[in-house]
Amino acid sequence: MSDTGFAPEGGQDEGFALNAGVVEAILAAVEAQDQDLLVDLLGQLHEADQADLLEQVSPQDRESLVRLWGERFDGAVLYELEEGVRDEILEIVDPRVLASAVQEMETDDLVYLVEDMEDAQKAEVLGALDDADRVAVEASLQYEEYTAGRLMSREMVTCPPHWTVGEAIDFMRASEDLPETFYKVILVDPRMHVAGTVALGSIMANRREVKLIDLADTAPRLIRADQPNEDVAYLFNHYHMVSAPVVDGDGRLVGVITIDDAMEILEEEVEEDIMRLGGVGDEELSDSVWETARARFPWLAVNLVTAIIASLVIALFEDTIEAIVALAVLMPIIASMGGNAATQTLTVAVRALATRDLTRANAWRIIRRETLVGLGNGIAFAVIIAGVGLAWFGSPMLGVVLALAMVINLLVAGLSGILIPMALEKAGADPALASGTFVTTVTDVVGFFAFLGLAGILLL
Amino acid sequence: MSDTGFAPEGGQDEGFALNAGVVEAILAAVEAQDQDLLVDLLGQLHEADQADLLEQVSPQDRESLVRLWGERFDGAVLYELEEGVRDEILEIVDPRVLASAVQEMETDDLVYLVEDMEDAQKAEVLGALDDADRVAVEASLQYEEYTAGRLMSREMVTCPPHWTVGEAIDFMRASEDLPETFYKVILVDPRMHVAGTVALGSIMANRREVKLIDLADTAPRLIRADQPNEDVAYLFNHYHMVSAPVVDGDGRLVGVITIDDAMEILEEEVEEDIMRLGGVGDEELSDSVWETARARFPWLAVNLVTAIIASLVIALFEDTIEAIVALAVLMPIIASMGGNAATQTLTVAVRALATRDLTRANAWRIIRRETLVGLGNGIAFAVIIAGVGLAWFGSPMLGVVLALAMVINLLVAGLSGILIPMALEKAGADPALASGTFVTTVTDVVGFFAFLGLAGILLL
Repeated sequence: MSDTGFAPEGGQDEGFALNAGVVEAILAAVEAQDQDLLVDLLGQLHEADQADLLEQVSPQDRESLVRLWGERFDGAVLYELEEGVRDEILEIVDPRVLASAVQEMETDDLVYLVEDMEDAQKAEVLGALDDADRVAVEASLQYEEYTAGRLMSREMVTCPPHWTVGEAIDFMRASEDLPETFYKVILVDPRMHVAGTVALGSIMANRREVKLIDLADTAPRLIRADQPNEDVAYLFNHYHMVSAPVVDGDGRLVGVITIDDAMEILEEEVEEDIMRLGGVGDEELSDSVWETARARFPWLAVNLVTAIIASLVIALFEDTIEAIVALAVLMPIIASMGGNAATQTLTVAVRALATRDLTRANAWRIIRRETLVGLGNGIAFAVIIAGVGLAWFGSPMLGVVLALAMVINLLVAGLSGILIPMALEKAGADPALASGTFVTTVTDVVGFFAFLGLAGILLL
Repeated sequence: MSDTGFAPEGGQDEGFALNAGVVEAILAAVEAQDQDLLVDLLGQLHEADQADLLEQVSPQDRESLVRLWGERFDGAVLYELEEGVRDEILEIVDPRVLASAVQEMETDDLVYLVEDMEDAQKAEVLGALDDADRVAVEASLQYEEYTAGRLMSREMVTCPPHWTVGEAIDFMRASEDLPETFYKVILVDPRMHVAGTVALGSIMANRREVKLIDLADTAPRLIRADQPNEDVAYLFNHYHMVSAPVVDGDGRLVGVITIDDAMEILEEEVEEDIMRLGGVGDEELSDSVWETARARFPWLAVNLVTAIIASLVIALFEDTIEAIVALAVLMPIIASMGGNAATQTLTVAVRALATRDLTRANAWRIIRRETLVGLGNGIAFAVIIAGVGLAWFGSPMLGVVLALAMVINLLVAGLSGILIPMALEKAGADPALASGTFVTTVTDVVGFFAFLGLAGILLL
């Protein structure tokens, strides 16, 4: 630990990230079966770092650690764990230990914890809760997965709109269980419709006799309980929101979502996009070899099919290649450049769709831009590759064929890179998921066809 | 607009995203040179949506709109605009209008606004500020770009640690300019060292005579002013922080960062990773054809060089291909599968490095896993491709060559997909930026070399 006062909880390099020394010390405590030392060392870590530790050690060490932790297991770590590791740990932890651990969790964290559990385990956890918490968790579980209803917290502070600052402060002082964190008081009428929200800072800044409604934002942005997570992340990010009331189909207040939940969702959504663009699914770093290989197999299989399609195109020109072997040497260049240019356009398009910056208002201008960029870079690289072809094989006509194929393929790359994700989005599919394969198939097929076809016409 | 009370500010589909009707109405107002109507329509939009509108319309429409907006221009939109469009607009807006617009901005937003300006324009904006704001902005600009010092707000609420709840509330009531949003009161000693932080909710929930220090988190996580933005985003996300005091090298409080800033940074960082993985730089959707083509050219040029390297490998085997043209037909399959498998591994590795989940504690296990996954899927696809080769060309030996080359290339793909990003990270480079090119060069070269080399040995 540094002596500048950073990382007060210890165990991190530069104030974050588990350091190797702590990991070693903890594993040594497990090895020595020293429960007191283990609990002491773990207690110095934030639960997010405890979770990182559990995820990073081997499955054997993980099991030994959790068994030694035993009845002193801290339930807070459960919320932080990735699903695969969490399930492993839930099987090891004693049900009674688990039951007492979950009683201290907030209801939105509990929902996140139990939603993927099997029925038997879910029943066990729910059974351990007191009635109010169980009802709240069960009510949230009524909403679809990945919607605001699952995400929201039911712990919130509401007041009648006619109250004053003083009445609100007195009410909060008298409350037994205020939420752990809250930023706004929600004003609701007797039918639970939202009349406005008042920031805690405004309540602080005003005299006791001021009416809350006079301090309120009376038209706050509301979130519907059935709105998907990605909408929630977008709204918070776009409008710089800090917390938002969640209402049901009749406009009645049912919960509140705060920016920390939205931030997690934002990261998950973008993470998903990155993984899908890379042809990877929901895998986690702690997955086994078998799980990982199986998860990646389908995408490789799709790629095999598209690669064979490209090969079939080459097969059409076997005679041409037999006559001029240089074509076999050069053809991957055209395909590769097309694939790269298409990936550039595609990446921009997928992001712009995800952030809702690509809309009907600018679609045509962007399509036009991508086409012209493809054409422009196509011409630039056509000149370069013609020079390479000429210098390498001494044939001006081969240079012309390379140049023409390059222009055609980069133009097609730009067009397909923007049109395919837009079409997928329109069809209700996730453009991040499937665009890559479609687009590179197009550029491979067009690249090989244009290059070998032109060679057949112009060189033979 | 729906009648359920959503989207109270109007102009959005499903409560967000500028709809085409509003865009048309606004452009019609510009066309008709109706300033009152324009200001009225824009006034119904959140500034984030005003910014989207300005980004999405054509440069000509944008200029006409801003000119018509004229002296009634609302400066809040400046903070929301992407840089290219913002610079365009700053050139159109009358300096006096701009000067009055900036006076209403918070200092952290001002820093963001002026940091990329040219000196003359920066001086003009700074000159329009009152002394206190100018000093605050200039102090923030002393810190490096992309660090906490630039990001932090200097508007914060501090109290001596010995104060009571009542004293704090009275102090806040008497303050003229409390920050627009704040979640915590920071307790500081006379030398401005942080003694703790107290959540507003706790102040609300307690009686006037309770001491703040008894409610405080006395070891809050502090951020150093020189910490890079990505650390800030990581800390907020990892530890679910809501706000954090920022301290200078001597541990003195200099500002505060709130989660909404951290959320923006998180999105920017991940956006950068996605773009870099896709071979695209800092481009914006509103960039011109020329700007876009020029920005993408370097990556395509790098790709051209690596594609030529792969071609040189093929050229080594011209005689082999001349003897068996089927090799030219099939060789792209091996290269393509290797490239895809490598991209999968690479994507996982780049993300795990960015989220600090890939550390010394698990590096060897992950390297081992990726190697075994490459080997496993290599064997699976070797069997499939051997069957394809046999069925297509009727040569068992060709099947064997395909199978061996597939295993070798997928194994190498797994290894290079994990080792190259780790090596780049260790060397201080951004793995997202350069890994893709390195890795696919390796799989292309190895793929062609293994396939054609084995063919030369086993088939000739």
